[in-house]
Amino acid sequence: MEPEIKIRGYHTDQYQHVNNARYLEFLEEGRWQLIEDHINFEELMNKGFMFIAVNINIAYKNPARANDIVLVKTGMKKTGNTSAVMKQQVVNKTTGVVCVEAEVTFVIAGSNGKPLKIKGELKEILQQLPLFKG
Amino acid sequence: MEPEIKIRGYHTDQYQHVNNARYLEFLEEGRWQLIEDHINFEELMNKGFMFIAVNINIAYKNPARANDIVLVKTGMKKTGNTSAVMKQQVVNKTTGVVCVEAEVTFVIAGSNGKPLKIKGELKEILQQLPLFKG
Amino acid sequence: MEPEIKIRGYHTDQYQHVNNARYLEFLEEGRWQLIEDHINFEELMNKGFMFIAVNINIAYKNPARANDIVLVKTGMKKTGNTSAVMKQQVVNKTTGVVCVEAEVTFVIAGSNGKPLKIKGELKEILQQLPLFKG
Amino acid sequence: MEPEIKIRGYHTDQYQHVNNARYLEFLEEGRWQLIEDHINFEELMNKGFMFIAVNINIAYKNPARANDIVLVKTGMKKTGNTSAVMKQQVVNKTTGVVCVEAEVTFVIAGSNGKPLKIKGELKEILQQLPLFKG
Repeated sequence: MEPEIKIRGYHTDQYQHVNNARYLEFLEEGRWQLIEDHINFEELMNKGFMFIAVNINIAYKNPARANDIVLVKTGMKKTGNTSAVMKQQVVNKTTGVVCVEAEVTFVIAGSNGKPLKIKGELKEILQQLPLFKG
Repeated sequence: MEPEIKIRGYHTDQYQHVNNARYLEFLEEGRWQLIEDHINFEELMNKGFMFIAVNINIAYKNPARANDIVLVKTGMKKTGNTSAVMKQQVVNKTTGVVCVEAEVTFVIAGSNGKPLKIKGELKEILQQLPLFKG
Repeated sequence: MEPEIKIRGYHTDQYQHVNNARYLEFLEEGRWQLIEDHINFEELMNKGFMFIAVNINIAYKNPARANDIVLVKTGMKKTGNTSAVMKQQVVNKTTGVVCVEAEVTFVIAGSNGKPLKIKGELKEILQQLPLFKG
Repeated sequence: MEPEIKIRGYHTDQYQHVNNARYLEFLEEGRWQLIEDHINFEELMNKGFMFIAVNINIAYKNPARANDIVLVKTGMKKTGNTSAVMKQQVVNKTTGVVCVEAEVTFVIAGSNGKPLKIKGELKEILQQLPLFKG
């Protein structure tokens, strides 16, 4: 389920907008939720798989302010041989206005910390994650 | 001066790495420091100018861990007609290894919150900010 | 309603426990929720009333860890002439174990930032907030 | 050395004051700095000793705002048989005004996570930490 967050004063900064670092926590929450909803995360952890973000490209489109309620939408965009990309949006629940839009490139590392090839079992696992729907 | 930050446990996450949201606070610190070091920030504020990030593209290259000391390097990359780009790196002070590298696109808004054309006085102000040196 | 929070890696620190600063955000969330659920907060804001914490006494009893689900329980403890006290607990939803317990003393300031006497209308407002139930 | 922190917009909240959770990060920074300055922290970690806060009592006395520079003052207050107390203040560097004042009670846990008796070697270590000077 999409995380729903009520913006509080401590999320905001001197401009009364949600601070740009805080959005990355909202996005991380969205990614964990997507993973939990669609794959057996505990099994992944037991195998020592780690999701590691290697690039985040985030566009700040419209400010969110205290008392706004926002939704974090998350889905897959594409899967390559060694990395994959999720697309995410933080959207004002009431107005539908997009506050931020992001693409997050990640790798999956094994227990030695090295990125794994995305093939076989790992590829099947990632295919259980739904595509992004705006 | 480049901010120097000693990494503490509360900066890190379940992988014992500095969390990806926390780096954005380090980068924001670097940008404020650059601005303070080179332009009369109080004068800018009195005129109602606001620096607003519209895009951050951040690559996580090598993890920083508790007890590491990192430097935040910041400089201008380019200035356009309505937006400008700063380049930033968080670098391990001891080893020189680059932990993250980012490009931050920003606009300058006036007191009504609308982005201003970067020309005349505003352009001169931004030209006081030095170019990024790796 | 009591906020329900799933602990994520970014909430934790080098000991794999929720960091002590982070709990204060959880507690703040609990206080806003209590206020919203029982009083007309918008009206308060329009009158320029500000809830300002002047003391927080927090006992860290049992660590919360990534993947735990916690509830934030909040209620009034007592109301004095110029300040009031809320009691709060962060509790593991599954086990009932108390992670932290806190007493938060606050004042209500008017639009000039000065604490107001808690009497008349203001006292009636605070009396709408229910007492803490463990 | 006392940490010196320039307050930025992202430290503040809807009241334009440093948020109450953020101060706990400032205080944690102060405690680490005190420990590093006076005892061989690496040796402690190698022995598996962990400093764990069990109670924080913090009074918010005067707000700090963006562009203020604050110092974090930290020292020992007392050492008991199983716990010890540090006193801390966050002080405006320019005016000397005390923003927050806190007492932090902590235990030292061994590698099994259980609090240790403070005697012998451990007591000697803690005695290397100077008393609080306001």
